Amino acid sequence: MLSKTVDVIAAALSERIENGEFSSGRLPAERSLSECYSTTRITLREALGLLEAQGIIYRELRRGWFLAPPRLVYNPSHHSHFHAMAAEQGRIASTEVIEARQVPAQLAIARHLNLLEGDGVYRIRRLRRIDGRAVLYVEHYLNPAFFPGLLDEDLTRSLTDLYDQRYGIRYGGARFTILPGPLPARAAPALNVASGTPGLLITRINRDQYKRVIDCDCEYWRYDALCVDVVV
Amino acid sequence: MLSKTVDVIAAALSERIENGEFSSGRLPAERSLSECYSTTRITLREALGLLEAQGIIYRELRRGWFLAPPRLVYNPSHHSHFHAMAAEQGRIASTEVIEARQVPAQLAIARHLNLLEGDGVYRIRRLRRIDGRAVLYVEHYLNPAFFPGLLDEDLTRSLTDLYDQRYGIRYGGARFTILPGPLPARAAPALNVASGTPGLLITRINRDQYKRVIDCDCEYWRYDALCVDVVV
Repeated sequence: MLSKTVDVIAAALSERIENGEFSSGRLPAERSLSECYSTTRITLREALGLLEAQGIIYRELRRGWFLAPPRLVYNPSHHSHFHAMAAEQGRIASTEVIEARQVPAQLAIARHLNLLEGDGVYRIRRLRRIDGRAVLYVEHYLNPAFFPGLLDEDLTRSLTDLYDQRYGIRYGGARFTILPGPLPARAAPALNVASGTPGLLITRINRDQYKRVIDCDCEYWRYDALCVDVVV
Repeated sequence: MLSKTVDVIAAALSERIENGEFSSGRLPAERSLSECYSTTRITLREALGLLEAQGIIYRELRRGWFLAPPRLVYNPSHHSHFHAMAAEQGRIASTEVIEARQVPAQLAIARHLNLLEGDGVYRIRRLRRIDGRAVLYVEHYLNPAFFPGLLDEDLTRSLTDLYDQRYGIRYGGARFTILPGPLPARAAPALNVASGTPGLLITRINRDQYKRVIDCDCEYWRYDALCVDVVV
């Protein structure tokens, strides 16, 4: 019975949210919600926890419950780049270049790119924002053989466009690995969270239209910034 | 320079792990590792944090660093069921049925299944283990029209097999939504973690060989139990 009550309250709240009832972006206090549903704080919190798990609301310490900003929908089968993906969803994307240079490839990166450990690779570190909020810290590793002179370009723009326009290279398939886990010290501060905060590490190994491996991205996402959507 | 040192130490440790050097499953103490690499605890911890983010090692409070048990690789494009997926990866799967009954559909579930809110659906709650460790709490919602009498079957077995053998229904496409977030109170205790611990909610809406929506799964995974692999 308890679990039914939780479901019923969660469904009722979810419907009120969907109907735009809390347009301030904030839910009423827990006390008034538990009175409204004639239930205990414990049951109410379980219902709120369900909506939190579904990414509908989030909690701020001592401030209460808020409607979550919509997550970016990340569809691995559409290879649209970050700015295009954001624009299609009515969001505003921006990109900051943190660093771009040639470095010797570590073993794992060398393997992804079919190179030898220590071979030179281009490493580009960027921070990406949605509607002004930092959501993605990414390290791109490029095989320089395909992209001579690329480090001199404006790297705040889309690499997808740059590949196509300057090098005639287009994406033609990828392998994605999605690994939930704590954000490492190099990504967390850029994303305004404490090191160790949960995040998603998405590794993409990209091929071009001739099926050659051209680059590899290590993306560190705030866990609450995206939703991955796969249709098979 | 600092960040280079971190990378170099992380790569060296990762290679030693790969070579099977820490067969006890445990890393040496941080102090001896930082002496071994002539580095500070801070830098060493950053390197360990990188390996943690990659799911290679994990930390236990006051006990130190351990090699992570291998994650289950979850490939949405292969529709192999849980037990088959585990077996292919040399792991042992088991399933416990927590509850199975007909309930009125909440709005979100009704929409997924193309039913009306309040229509009867079969709800099956199960807990799934890999090598004895609880990793997945799942709620299956089935459209009863396709599966008369199913609740009387042995539901510890694969639904995939049961669908096929008793009803001649086979999976023929799915939509996956992967949402990282805190585990709700209904899933967390079953997975031996505190409510609010990060997890992955995977929602799958499944179609049969005739492209009819037959069921929907809400899967709550321990975040450190799996790695999602998508090839496009």
